[in-house]
Amino acid sequence: MRKLALLADRFNTLWMEDGKVHMLNRRKYPFVIEYVTCSNLEEVAECIENMTIQGAPPLAYAAGLALSMLAHEHEMDSEQKFFEAFEAGIDRLMHTRPTGWDLGYVMNGCREVAKSSYDFGRDVAEEIRKYVYVQIEDGNRIARDTGRYAADLIRDGARIQTICFAGAALAYMLYFAAEDGKDIELFASETRPYLQGARLTAQSCVEMGIPVTVITDNMPGYLMESGKTNVFVSTADKITMDGYIANKIGTYQIAMAAFDNDIPYYLLGYNGPVKGSYGPSSLKIEERSPEEVLHCLGQRTSVDGVNGYYPAFDITSPRYISAVATDRGIFPARLIGKYHEKPYLDPFKNPRVI
Amino acid sequence: MRKLALLADRFNTLWMEDGKVHMLNRRKYPFVIEYVTCSNLEEVAECIENMTIQGAPPLAYAAGLALSMLAHEHEMDSEQKFFEAFEAGIDRLMHTRPTGWDLGYVMNGCREVAKSSYDFGRDVAEEIRKYVYVQIEDGNRIARDTGRYAADLIRDGARIQTICFAGAALAYMLYFAAEDGKDIELFASETRPYLQGARLTAQSCVEMGIPVTVITDNMPGYLMESGKTNVFVSTADKITMDGYIANKIGTYQIAMAAFDNDIPYYLLGYNGPVKGSYGPSSLKIEERSPEEVLHCLGQRTSVDGVNGYYPAFDITSPRYISAVATDRGIFPARLIGKYHEKPYLDPFKNPRVI
Repeated sequence: MRKLALLADRFNTLWMEDGKVHMLNRRKYPFVIEYVTCSNLEEVAECIENMTIQGAPPLAYAAGLALSMLAHEHEMDSEQKFFEAFEAGIDRLMHTRPTGWDLGYVMNGCREVAKSSYDFGRDVAEEIRKYVYVQIEDGNRIARDTGRYAADLIRDGARIQTICFAGAALAYMLYFAAEDGKDIELFASETRPYLQGARLTAQSCVEMGIPVTVITDNMPGYLMESGKTNVFVSTADKITMDGYIANKIGTYQIAMAAFDNDIPYYLLGYNGPVKGSYGPSSLKIEERSPEEVLHCLGQRTSVDGVNGYYPAFDITSPRYISAVATDRGIFPARLIGKYHEKPYLDPFKNPRVI
Repeated sequence: MRKLALLADRFNTLWMEDGKVHMLNRRKYPFVIEYVTCSNLEEVAECIENMTIQGAPPLAYAAGLALSMLAHEHEMDSEQKFFEAFEAGIDRLMHTRPTGWDLGYVMNGCREVAKSSYDFGRDVAEEIRKYVYVQIEDGNRIARDTGRYAADLIRDGARIQTICFAGAALAYMLYFAAEDGKDIELFASETRPYLQGARLTAQSCVEMGIPVTVITDNMPGYLMESGKTNVFVSTADKITMDGYIANKIGTYQIAMAAFDNDIPYYLLGYNGPVKGSYGPSSLKIEERSPEEVLHCLGQRTSVDGVNGYYPAFDITSPRYISAVATDRGIFPARLIGKYHEKPYLDPFKNPRVI
């Protein structure tokens, strides 16, 4: 059995210990393996903002653990003061990164847990930590199941284009496809400005013994038109009920190139679309500091007197998406809303019929 | 009158003096303004290979001047020895960078000049230098005229996406559009791995007082889908008679995004297509060292154990190209072969009717 990538299990990169939140610094990994310790909510919020922790689910879990620290700080407060502080904390965290869906989901869950455990006189901080840990465990299960379904879509001989780091499900997809005996290779576009493709994705492949080639972000189209890659796989930070996605900036360009060259584009959809969201207008795009695009690994890339612009995500239409793999199986992109009607069947214990 | 960019006039960046070839180091410009002196053909060939000089016409001119130096070195040789050395020199230069068309054109021209001036007992080195200088002057005229025609395609309020450095014609296009009183802004994709967009294009805009925003190579699609840019302009290293182009890697992805968003894509076609070339299969794509894509400004971008891959160009179909601006006016992409039948009319002295 081959090794799994470090990033496949979220507990490897985020946990609570001695009342503090510990997280892998994803800005530096894998060049430097550094764990950052956050002692309060504000420190976690800043780590989310500056992308020390990244990815829609991981940053949501970190935000949940931040609320646990906040609850502990305010445990002696009156009920009114406690919940004022709690709501202010949620508000602070919700303003860190607006695009993903998981953050709002975990914040709402924490609020419910806080209310009910406060009412029952329980240790609110500990109840929130336990709730977030259950979310992380469930997130790990979702990633593994999604990866298992997605691996069935990957053919022997697949040359897989991907962008950014498509999360734990990508690691599992590659792991299962390779364990199933398929000859696969990954092509990671480096994903400027922070190079998550060249760092996180490439490193995960190296750890798992999957051949990986790093290219710059202007190259996926040519690799497809020249036959060097034959399938595109990404995740999405948010999926609408009718199959529009927001994902790392650059996804849209590659999706079009795949479509133009008759190459399938499979989406790692994890736990599906956001209920009640329809169409591209329901996808909010985060704009980050212009200075970030004018640097690479700390070095300035352009001259004085220029502007920068950094939209962190783009929007891709379901017309370019061939299928969506989730923990509940495979869906056509336009019918991804059906995810919420489909029962969960463990893909390791049941036949995986698409 | 505003200032023209340094790169608009090729004599600013390449000339012969005291029998040596001097060129601006385009790998370092504008961070460092450094002129490299080459004393023999091999040094010029290496400067072309390592991209000290770039762009299909400039590198062809440099190669021509290299032959002038070679002719001087061998002026005392017998006729047979002279032309053996001369052909070996052409062969060396032709193997530097295979994609552009200008290199072969200038090499052929130099061969003809060498033969006829040798037969007439002239100073071959000097005749070649004069021939290349005429080519540079003509290249400057072609760039200026192309830019003049292209400026007419740029509407007031244009937000222009571009890639890499589209050469002197881009500088002239921006210059004339701005002088015509149009409100324009440029969006330069940085163009990894060597960042010609962030460096050469951005710097040229700064010199001319044109507002410029630098983005990473994964962003043009989103800027188009969100309405931030409304026209795409690039050049091509080579154009076929039926309108296929090879240009800097990434052009294809942006062309598709323009098409998908109903945004025009105008090509700076300079002196038109290569006679006798038809279809994408006539476009040869240079693959450069994989190590180059794994670095940015000298820093390693990925981990050990990964591969790199560096195709320097990609191919775009005429179906994505809205019009081609040349020094002989504007052509539909599929009819660009008509360029060679059209007479030249100075666009500054005649009405420019499209």
